[in-house]
Amino acid sequence: MPNPTAAMLVIGDEILSGRTRDSNMHYLAGELTRIGIRLVEVRVVADDHAAIVAAVNALRAGVDHLFTSGGIGPTHDDITADAITAAFGAHIGHRADAMALLQAHYDRAGLPFNEARQRMARIPDGAILIDNPVSTAPGFTLGNVHVMAGVPNIFQAMVASVLPTLTGGAPLLSQSLRVNRGEGEIASDFGALAAQFPDLSMGSYPFIQNGAHGTNLVIRGTDPALLAEAMKRLVALFG
Amino acid sequence: MPNPTAAMLVIGDEILSGRTRDSNMHYLAGELTRIGIRLVEVRVVADDHAAIVAAVNALRAGVDHLFTSGGIGPTHDDITADAITAAFGAHIGHRADAMALLQAHYDRAGLPFNEARQRMARIPDGAILIDNPVSTAPGFTLGNVHVMAGVPNIFQAMVASVLPTLTGGAPLLSQSLRVNRGEGEIASDFGALAAQFPDLSMGSYPFIQNGAHGTNLVIRGTDPALLAEAMKRLVALFG
Repeated sequence: MPNPTAAMLVIGDEILSGRTRDSNMHYLAGELTRIGIRLVEVRVVADDHAAIVAAVNALRAGVDHLFTSGGIGPTHDDITADAITAAFGAHIGHRADAMALLQAHYDRAGLPFNEARQRMARIPDGAILIDNPVSTAPGFTLGNVHVMAGVPNIFQAMVASVLPTLTGGAPLLSQSLRVNRGEGEIASDFGALAAQFPDLSMGSYPFIQNGAHGTNLVIRGTDPALLAEAMKRLVALFG
Repeated sequence: MPNPTAAMLVIGDEILSGRTRDSNMHYLAGELTRIGIRLVEVRVVADDHAAIVAAVNALRAGVDHLFTSGGIGPTHDDITADAITAAFGAHIGHRADAMALLQAHYDRAGLPFNEARQRMARIPDGAILIDNPVSTAPGFTLGNVHVMAGVPNIFQAMVASVLPTLTGGAPLLSQSLRVNRGEGEIASDFGALAAQFPDLSMGSYPFIQNGAHGTNLVIRGTDPALLAEAMKRLVALFG
């Protein structure tokens, strides 16, 4: 059975302007690989209703799971929940379950549960809430789309809430060999080896350190025995 | 005149598997903002011919400039040049100008200019070479697509080669105010202020530090006087 697939949509002007460096993509990529879900595409779009709707509909059709990050807070530029709802042609409102969670949270904190904070209880009909142990305001899953916050520690907590509910595949394993030679020197033999293992993915990642060229050779696959066999051949060639 | 627009396509299995953390997106975003080109979308796809061709054609149609990073080295998984060529329905071959550059480079280094290294001289007909002062193997510009290496220091050197040839707009300026209050507390007044300055973009970026909620409020725009006026109002509200 092939591994399930996923895509990610990062939402936020602050990433595209260079103000903020996204870290959620790298985090999610590692977590998905660990449980055997293959991340096939990531898109980053602005806080723009039409752009979010178009990207959600383009991505969710082609994968088993779409994860979004960003734009579900209380301010005027948090438009993700409405855009997701529009992408599904669904209905959104202040949902009783989310209102109750947030009301209790702000009561405990002794803070007013004002109109802006109530915005975070706007959840589409039919969506399942995603637990947020960091700051309460929930994410949600609608269809195959998991909608999460952009603040990294909240995003990570929500990923931890969602992933155990998903069915992964065989974990994608990888092994790597670091060689002190440039890619151009090893490319031919490495390509020939890759051709002999069509069920594995082999990639080479050049680096420059102290002015010298080197290459990390990485083999990925789900079959540990096949991976070990290929790695033995790789070490024999370049080790 | 509206600012020119750009998109970016990051190519590489290693980003999607979580093995490598991309840094080129954040770098390019900052450089484009500095010269007044608005980055509107980023996509990350695997080393997959069909995925690259589809993304290149989808993105280049909607923006003034498309920048790609990754997949132009000498190994079997470096398929970007061929995919870009296919996206344009162009022709690719070992181009004499690139062959000469690389031949001279490897002669100087006393290394064989073998078949794998010659792969890096495969450049589409009609493309303009992008100078690579780090390791010689050039990038190229075909139509409005700028094709660059994925290794961060080479990517950055190529960006430095390309950007001065492009016409930017008025630089996008930003100012920010850090407030020690949660988003939910300031959202209403901040949203009302944003509505009064439709030519500026206002965003709020929550953070948690030592358990306390805070928010960075950011105003962006190209008109310094308007920005200063809005900033004055922002400080009056929350400073």
